[in-house]
Amino acid sequence: MKNKIIGYYNTKFGELWDKSLEDLIKESIFNIFKDTGIVQQEVDAVFFGNMLGGIVENRLLTSGMISEMLDMHIPIYRLEAACASGGMAFQMANEYLKQHPDSTILVIGAEKMSDVSTEDVTRGLSAASSAEEQTAGLTFPGLYGMMAQVYMNKYGYHEEHLAYISVKNHYHGSLNDKAHFRKVITVDTVLKSPYVAYPLKVLNSSAISDGAAAVLLTNKPAVIKKSKYAVDILSSNLASDTLSLKNRKQLDGLEATQIASKTAFQEAGLHPNDIHIAEVHDCFSIAEIMAMEDLGFWKKGEGGEKAKALATQLGSHEKLVVNTSGGLKAAGHPVGATGVKQIGEVFLQLTGQAEKRSVRNAKYGLAHNVGGSGAVAIVTILGV
Amino acid sequence: MKNKIIGYYNTKFGELWDKSLEDLIKESIFNIFKDTGIVQQEVDAVFFGNMLGGIVENRLLTSGMISEMLDMHIPIYRLEAACASGGMAFQMANEYLKQHPDSTILVIGAEKMSDVSTEDVTRGLSAASSAEEQTAGLTFPGLYGMMAQVYMNKYGYHEEHLAYISVKNHYHGSLNDKAHFRKVITVDTVLKSPYVAYPLKVLNSSAISDGAAAVLLTNKPAVIKKSKYAVDILSSNLASDTLSLKNRKQLDGLEATQIASKTAFQEAGLHPNDIHIAEVHDCFSIAEIMAMEDLGFWKKGEGGEKAKALATQLGSHEKLVVNTSGGLKAAGHPVGATGVKQIGEVFLQLTGQAEKRSVRNAKYGLAHNVGGSGAVAIVTILGV
Repeated sequence: MKNKIIGYYNTKFGELWDKSLEDLIKESIFNIFKDTGIVQQEVDAVFFGNMLGGIVENRLLTSGMISEMLDMHIPIYRLEAACASGGMAFQMANEYLKQHPDSTILVIGAEKMSDVSTEDVTRGLSAASSAEEQTAGLTFPGLYGMMAQVYMNKYGYHEEHLAYISVKNHYHGSLNDKAHFRKVITVDTVLKSPYVAYPLKVLNSSAISDGAAAVLLTNKPAVIKKSKYAVDILSSNLASDTLSLKNRKQLDGLEATQIASKTAFQEAGLHPNDIHIAEVHDCFSIAEIMAMEDLGFWKKGEGGEKAKALATQLGSHEKLVVNTSGGLKAAGHPVGATGVKQIGEVFLQLTGQAEKRSVRNAKYGLAHNVGGSGAVAIVTILGV
Repeated sequence: MKNKIIGYYNTKFGELWDKSLEDLIKESIFNIFKDTGIVQQEVDAVFFGNMLGGIVENRLLTSGMISEMLDMHIPIYRLEAACASGGMAFQMANEYLKQHPDSTILVIGAEKMSDVSTEDVTRGLSAASSAEEQTAGLTFPGLYGMMAQVYMNKYGYHEEHLAYISVKNHYHGSLNDKAHFRKVITVDTVLKSPYVAYPLKVLNSSAISDGAAAVLLTNKPAVIKKSKYAVDILSSNLASDTLSLKNRKQLDGLEATQIASKTAFQEAGLHPNDIHIAEVHDCFSIAEIMAMEDLGFWKKGEGGEKAKALATQLGSHEKLVVNTSGGLKAAGHPVGATGVKQIGEVFLQLTGQAEKRSVRNAKYGLAHNVGGSGAVAIVTILGV
């Protein structure tokens, strides 16, 4: 029996000052049970993705925290891959499930980033770059800023092209009541926002958010039969790359995405043209443009032009709609939760549950999650 | 083809002031390749266990660091489960390998704990207990001290009984040139050392160490054929429990160990009587006594007596020898490395490579790794 996703829940993303990491995990667990009708005793294992819990809230060995919530002794694993912690947890859960027939697995991603020490968060995020980059003071905006410069110089694009990515994603976020930012913005607003790291501005950057997301996976026929929704996991692949930008073969794209994507499409027996809906990793606007090219949706170098045409916005004449959740930019980026939320958004779209932001007749969807400046990428393809 | 271990390397454990986490990982990777003759291009995936890298050295997304060392894009995963990070990485690698025929996997555990901020290390270790325990100031010696009191009161034992565990493990450590502590100690020395948390003394407690350990797993016939050594992985099981001590059903044993052990013996088709050599998790002396009972080697309550008889010391008349590496007490406890080192020590014993501490004709061995105060336990059984 193929692995399937049968349920999804995410908390509101945003500055949730009244909620700890533990609260966020608990909310996502008990609501996904409530929504799906699955009871916890039906779960055979849990995979949890989180980046900063140890640094910002002194929470490690979170598998024990989850065991305590569930009052169960089942295997529970924590995976960490910076902003790809959620995607890695999902990808590993899918591999594990292939080896365990008749099983049901809970995947959770969560992150607490606001109302803790800003210094801890900034330092913690920078832990996902090389020792040399850290010493040089290169935080993520700086690393993506360098990639943006290479890309823009090579293909002749300007800050305006980047701005359209944020405009589109904020429009989508305005339709998602779980999103951190729900305000529609204009190109002008983006261009007038201050620089974070040239050429990237505040409104080209994802924000610091709190949130959790959970999906239920199963290959158990009886569970699938009683589930209201079921989406096939056609493939979920992971590729690695160097931590250091200076040791990469290219700076206008991420090789980890290219490799994971190629394998994922082969395994699914699909082509980028077959995809109707995608959630791609837009930690900065340039990241979405590079991702669209690396995933094979756009040709190398045409990303700026496509972005300006709002080619992947809801209602565009083109087939593929991208980041209907609002993406990392507008939905928010609680780092450990993001990879799971992306998969959850595709699940919602493929099962007709995406409400105002629904893409009609979507049959195939893709989720793309990146760790750090590209040291890891996970590409997951789902279908109904 | 059954999963097999074909190689093991560990760095010296100790206060390695001239080595970073990155140095330790690199040393273990390139030496295991040298020792086994396996070249890195033959490796299909890496599983890495580490607890404190984010907190003490600002190193997260370590999969990227390892990808950079290997110059490869293969899947690399980081798992964290406090002191069981290495055991969890191994257990997950073994599950993954079952699903991937003709594959070879590298498992690494590493931890850097000395020559960094002691405050960071103490705070980081405490992150593996519940929020309430942290607020109460209950660090690990305190939690294990409470368990020791319950155990000793219930079965009528004294500090002297605990001391023999350290005496035995230091004797074994004196025979292991990779061990942190190589000095033979007496019961008197242990009893005269100061209390850390009543009734546990300094010499009942594992120390802060640096170190890394790596094992190579394979199910590829061609690789097994050319390997000098090959040990069967008969089972590797993991069970969870509550983070909070107050929510446990028992305090004189760890339920996670009992469950993981029962399943591991069933899967291996063996009985505790069949085991010749075991590495068990002796973070504090009481932990080894409880582990021996939880694993089914000793009856509940006879642990103190058995400890005093040095029943599991090399040269004892009994069949089972325990913690020939020196255990966490004498070999050292670089937390992420420990679970891998335990499995590696069993591998060395089963392949006749344990030199001065060799157990003759050992056919079956067991490794037992615990996270925190017992929120997770992994039991692995190997055979030749």
